[in-house]
Amino acid sequence: MIVPRLIERKRDGHPLEPAELRELVLAYSDGRVPDYQIAALLMAIYFRGLDRGEMNALANAMLDSGKRLDLSRLALPRVDKHSTGGVGDKVSIILAPLIASLGVAVPMMSGRGLGHTGGTVDKLESIPGFRTALTIPEAEQQLSKIGCAMLSQTKEIVPADRKLYALRDATGTVEVIPLIASSIMSKKIAESLTGLVLDIKRGSGAFLPKLDDELALAGAMIDLGMQHELPVVALLTAMDRPLGWACGNALEIAESIDVLMGAGPADLLEVTLALGAEMLQLAAVCSTAKAAREIMSEAIASGKALRKLEEIIVAQGGDKRVLSDFTRLPQAPHRASFPAARDGIVQQVEPRAVGYGVIALGGGRTNMEDKVDPSVGYVLTAKPGDRVTKGQPLATIHARTAADLQAGAKALAEAITIGDGDAEPLPLVSHRISAKGVEVIP
Amino acid sequence: MIVPRLIERKRDGHPLEPAELRELVLAYSDGRVPDYQIAALLMAIYFRGLDRGEMNALANAMLDSGKRLDLSRLALPRVDKHSTGGVGDKVSIILAPLIASLGVAVPMMSGRGLGHTGGTVDKLESIPGFRTALTIPEAEQQLSKIGCAMLSQTKEIVPADRKLYALRDATGTVEVIPLIASSIMSKKIAESLTGLVLDIKRGSGAFLPKLDDELALAGAMIDLGMQHELPVVALLTAMDRPLGWACGNALEIAESIDVLMGAGPADLLEVTLALGAEMLQLAAVCSTAKAAREIMSEAIASGKALRKLEEIIVAQGGDKRVLSDFTRLPQAPHRASFPAARDGIVQQVEPRAVGYGVIALGGGRTNMEDKVDPSVGYVLTAKPGDRVTKGQPLATIHARTAADLQAGAKALAEAITIGDGDAEPLPLVSHRISAKGVEVIP
Repeated sequence: MIVPRLIERKRDGHPLEPAELRELVLAYSDGRVPDYQIAALLMAIYFRGLDRGEMNALANAMLDSGKRLDLSRLALPRVDKHSTGGVGDKVSIILAPLIASLGVAVPMMSGRGLGHTGGTVDKLESIPGFRTALTIPEAEQQLSKIGCAMLSQTKEIVPADRKLYALRDATGTVEVIPLIASSIMSKKIAESLTGLVLDIKRGSGAFLPKLDDELALAGAMIDLGMQHELPVVALLTAMDRPLGWACGNALEIAESIDVLMGAGPADLLEVTLALGAEMLQLAAVCSTAKAAREIMSEAIASGKALRKLEEIIVAQGGDKRVLSDFTRLPQAPHRASFPAARDGIVQQVEPRAVGYGVIALGGGRTNMEDKVDPSVGYVLTAKPGDRVTKGQPLATIHARTAADLQAGAKALAEAITIGDGDAEPLPLVSHRISAKGVEVIP
Repeated sequence: MIVPRLIERKRDGHPLEPAELRELVLAYSDGRVPDYQIAALLMAIYFRGLDRGEMNALANAMLDSGKRLDLSRLALPRVDKHSTGGVGDKVSIILAPLIASLGVAVPMMSGRGLGHTGGTVDKLESIPGFRTALTIPEAEQQLSKIGCAMLSQTKEIVPADRKLYALRDATGTVEVIPLIASSIMSKKIAESLTGLVLDIKRGSGAFLPKLDDELALAGAMIDLGMQHELPVVALLTAMDRPLGWACGNALEIAESIDVLMGAGPADLLEVTLALGAEMLQLAAVCSTAKAAREIMSEAIASGKALRKLEEIIVAQGGDKRVLSDFTRLPQAPHRASFPAARDGIVQQVEPRAVGYGVIALGGGRTNMEDKVDPSVGYVLTAKPGDRVTKGQPLATIHARTAADLQAGAKALAEAITIGDGDAEPLPLVSHRISAKGVEVIP
């Protein structure tokens, strides 16, 4: 294998053999091929793409670079949900216990926040004591005991993907559909699932802002799933505004608990139920979305879903008292309301600006080494289309210092626009994509 | 400067500011930006190109990453010749002493062979004792003393280019016109020239096989020269067959000495005189090509040019006895003739295959760390258009072992095709490009 020749072939628009791509990825994972050669190849892939066979070879090589969960002894169906990343997106924290409480194993491996988006692992770690760095045997054991484990990607699972992801982030090659698809699917296949639901974000806060790209990404991941006998269903959901109200790690945990208690914002509940209905159908627990929604509502109303979250928190070393006392979560010392600057209708709450606002408050990362303050963020109750009057509070800012309150307010002033016309937000759930094709949701 | 954002801008087809590009190149040269980010940027440049301003900023930054020769005290005009690289191209070794013997300073900084092409530095080092690693003060002193120095690119001169070139070689980003142009021109401007002649190779043995690309490269380099008040003239010359007969380091030195003695192959002499005529006109030693050819022929006939080579060899520690006794050059222990396989007309002597044959014999590199055996190679007297009879010797193979003779013959069998029709070689010198435009040579 002469690496510069492989790079040149891809650069010139010729496909690489699956065996070559496999050898290259495994050699990179082992440190036998340097970063700079892979960086050049990634940029060539940005321009030339990967065909179906290359994408599958890449996903397989990443899988084979490490270990997988072995859940074959589990009698339960095994379903996970994965989101392409957004602002205020705490769906996983609600969905994992909810679905696990209904007899489906949920082996949920998540990431940390990066860019303007938050990450499930950061959110969970705002629960005092909560440990996400489970080993593979620990995760397997917890799954057979309580049907759910919420872990960070371990070093043992798809290490090639970790390395590639960090390199992509540093080299302007993040937004490449076949690379995104292989990265996500290699991790999900390593979870040993029987079904996977994807939440593909749309709108200005999404990593891929164009609808065509989102549909292509969904198609690529469904196709990769099929090549591994893993049924995949994708929903396209709105990320032209934050999901729910809370943006910031501990604040989002509190809001997730609210939803599991039957309270919380309606949009967040709706996206959660839409994704959950797909999970329950893939798991063959229900045969219709309607039936699935009913048993999920019961699981919330009865407290069954919340008790499952309690079991997870206890199993992973967290302080379960947060469930009944939010002051057990990290608290920011400074709070202030953010008032509407004028009368009118909220036109936009731009999620990327909100996400960067959370980072400015110290609640997110600009690189993987940054420490995150879990206490800070926003509770942003204004939604596009809301009629507001000047001075009315649109959000609460949670900050470490009084100066940070100013910075946080500045970001909100950029994010929120108030006008006179009607707002035109994206539909909350707009498309459903499966192996059968694309369905526009009415 | 956030490097991934710069990479993304170039990736998306937007130009970088000259100041940004400069800062990036200097930071890379200092080791403050890692190889992998520059590798991704280089591949983005492959696809998106560089505009005039970016190319000049790149060349300037490379220049300013190191030192330059200071030849301002020299009363003489200072002219160099640079070739884009070929097989059997030993023109520099003839031209430097020839032009220096006519009152023009020739500060000739050359490279080593890479890929299928040979390098002047490797050739010179086959002269026992010859030292090409001159320091800048040594080169300056030698130039003021004897009007010529033939040195390898020192670590002090354009270090950013050294680093970038090695990276390009490893990442499939060698054949990028603005990168080639900036790389060559930064080195040539560092030589403190008053004129530069470029030999841009055409045909299957050239790095850029398409005529349009060759013309674009010439145009880019002439433009870069103008931005530094350095007049540049380029000739396009044939590299669809090796130049001259000898291919291999010591064999090429012997052939160069032959030419300076008035012997040697006609094509090599012709290309040398064509380039030399441009150098002498740029130096204002002659006002016409005809006059230039006359004084060059006199310098060869009188032995003046050969004596200048002797001065250079002595000044750089070499054994001047090679000039009268070729057995003082490294000798390969095994020799064999390569016979014509059939009667007919030589259709092609493919230079890339010949170059790889020299590498197979141990006389070239596949990477920068390889040791080169100066003794091996070919003396390949067959030229396209020659009528040959079966069994007639077309070449002599010089090898280290009997087994190598076989490998060397195999490469020649691939390189040389004999047929019945007329051969259609490229004209030896086909185009002349200057600031005034492109001239097709009749």
